[in-house]
Amino acid sequence: MKTRAAVAFEAKKPLEIVELDLEGPKAGEVLVEIMATGICHTDAYTLDGFDSEGIFPSVLGHEGAGIVREVGAGVTSVKPGDHVIPLYTPECRQCKSCLSGKTNLCTAIRATQGKGLMPDGTTRFSYKGQPIYHYMGCSTFSNFTVLPEIAVAKIREDAPFDKSCYIGCGVTTGVGAVVNTAKVRVGDNVIVFGLGGIGLNVLQGARMVGADKIIGVDINPDREAWGKRFGMTHFVNPKEIEGDIVQHLVALTDGGADHTFDCTGNTTVMRQALEACHRGWGVSTVIGVAEAGKEISTRPFQLVTGRVWQGSAFGGAKGRTDVPKIVDWYMNGKIEIDPMITHVLSLEEINKGFDLMHAGKSIRSVVVF
Amino acid sequence: MKTRAAVAFEAKKPLEIVELDLEGPKAGEVLVEIMATGICHTDAYTLDGFDSEGIFPSVLGHEGAGIVREVGAGVTSVKPGDHVIPLYTPECRQCKSCLSGKTNLCTAIRATQGKGLMPDGTTRFSYKGQPIYHYMGCSTFSNFTVLPEIAVAKIREDAPFDKSCYIGCGVTTGVGAVVNTAKVRVGDNVIVFGLGGIGLNVLQGARMVGADKIIGVDINPDREAWGKRFGMTHFVNPKEIEGDIVQHLVALTDGGADHTFDCTGNTTVMRQALEACHRGWGVSTVIGVAEAGKEISTRPFQLVTGRVWQGSAFGGAKGRTDVPKIVDWYMNGKIEIDPMITHVLSLEEINKGFDLMHAGKSIRSVVVF
Repeated sequence: MKTRAAVAFEAKKPLEIVELDLEGPKAGEVLVEIMATGICHTDAYTLDGFDSEGIFPSVLGHEGAGIVREVGAGVTSVKPGDHVIPLYTPECRQCKSCLSGKTNLCTAIRATQGKGLMPDGTTRFSYKGQPIYHYMGCSTFSNFTVLPEIAVAKIREDAPFDKSCYIGCGVTTGVGAVVNTAKVRVGDNVIVFGLGGIGLNVLQGARMVGADKIIGVDINPDREAWGKRFGMTHFVNPKEIEGDIVQHLVALTDGGADHTFDCTGNTTVMRQALEACHRGWGVSTVIGVAEAGKEISTRPFQLVTGRVWQGSAFGGAKGRTDVPKIVDWYMNGKIEIDPMITHVLSLEEINKGFDLMHAGKSIRSVVVF
Repeated sequence: MKTRAAVAFEAKKPLEIVELDLEGPKAGEVLVEIMATGICHTDAYTLDGFDSEGIFPSVLGHEGAGIVREVGAGVTSVKPGDHVIPLYTPECRQCKSCLSGKTNLCTAIRATQGKGLMPDGTTRFSYKGQPIYHYMGCSTFSNFTVLPEIAVAKIREDAPFDKSCYIGCGVTTGVGAVVNTAKVRVGDNVIVFGLGGIGLNVLQGARMVGADKIIGVDINPDREAWGKRFGMTHFVNPKEIEGDIVQHLVALTDGGADHTFDCTGNTTVMRQALEACHRGWGVSTVIGVAEAGKEISTRPFQLVTGRVWQGSAFGGAKGRTDVPKIVDWYMNGKIEIDPMITHVLSLEEINKGFDLMHAGKSIRSVVVF
């Protein structure tokens, strides 16, 4: 079949809207019509050539929502017509990681996914006879895409695609880090470093579980209004305080926060986030992705006196199990998405979405097919 | 009253055995006759002048066991004749830390303890009219010492002092890190870096809770026999393997350990311990105390992919609550202490105990009064 898609033919070049050839789903695979997709910093990271393992030509995009149109042999968990969110972190429920019950980082198809291929080692996309690679196992910048059955989460049919697509990455990463990874409890004090899309979702996750002080930290003063919209109780601009930011935050939280979250990717901030934790029990969760080669550091005394340093990927969410719940939370009003979708674009406008993100002018741009 | 004690008059000098004046217990304090005390690396760290906050002249020693001989006004939890272990980490059960239920790091008397003083801001020891300072709130290198009531754990009377004193620091630090901090579970794979006294106690803690592989890592080949005596199933000498120690350990544990423990104080080893953890859920617990100014570092990717970095002080044990349980475990044969006590000395021989430790010739030397 044919599908319209935005193709990254090479790094550091705009995406090109072309018509690709798409093979149908093989055994264990599903064909999904993507109805909407967000544009995420990770797509830009790859397109801009920062990911040394980035593969081209490829169809980027990993934050989508759509409808199953066809299933391959042996597929039992979804059927044509089901609404789904593609999962760049799949959930096979059979590998050592899934069976451990202690992580969401399913390893079933990691090797091929990292090479831009389907689990059988081939690609379904091609252009003029040349293979086009998959991206993060999703490739949602295509009107139709093929995914492994274990990489789609079936969701309720009344959830609007142009909002629920954001649950495919940003919402789950932020809200899930609070709920699944950090397990923030009612009454906890929370500090969130970096109030971009992820940070805002951490804020509203903390609000949802009843955190007490929810402190947002950002050097961009415009983020104060955004933070307050999603539950932030205090805003701290490191450029506007005197003295050390860690000391300031420790004082603001009577000894340090119960939980801190880094949503900046800046390793200096990651250290501040750890050290702003309360002695004895504070937990700092790293969500941001750091530049290649950068390292975090601290004095081990910080750990020996009871602080915990950990990380979160895809919000610790098991895709097929937890993503549908997050869709429910959205539909039930426990979390908000609508005000975060700052721009809605057509596929032809997708490069504009990247420009808006680079300029810091959007929280989330969504492409609707 | 008078008490025989080994006094550290200044750093980098041998202890001197002298007779000190000791004031009796004030309100909320107890007088304890120390029956036996271990000599720990932390005492040597202070005596050797490495602790920039070390206070002299003082009575060192923090790993003792003895008998309450007198109690001050208002003391209700112990009475003369009770057998006790002094606690350098007290348990007041009233401060924010104690009431949190999330840490053993009681802060009730931290300020004065750090200054070598009792909670009322004075010292009970003096020599020829000059004050002699307390150390870690314990000062067990004295036949008699005064402690806050909240800094003694009442233990069973059939436990021998010359063994149970080791529970005052080393045993609890190692076994407790496994049980309280890391919460190792039956079947877990464990790697212990550094097989000194703390490391051996981590090994036997892992054995007690039913860990599967219990791997010991040390560059001293003599430690292999010691490790096997306390539950180690595999020994790895980094000097004898080819290639990277982390890769070697990850292969040995089918992807990495569920739990690793640093008992070396070496920040390079601390990093190895983190990175030898299993992707998705491995937890690394820092026990060793690093040199002043040294920092730990790693790529944040290690955390984002599911490893947790934490620390443990006094084995995460709440002194008055948990130390008596560890004495029970010893008396019931769940853990061993006797073979770790390699040397028994008189107070007059205490400097020999430091020499043995510096030469790496003892696991634990104990002074019996």
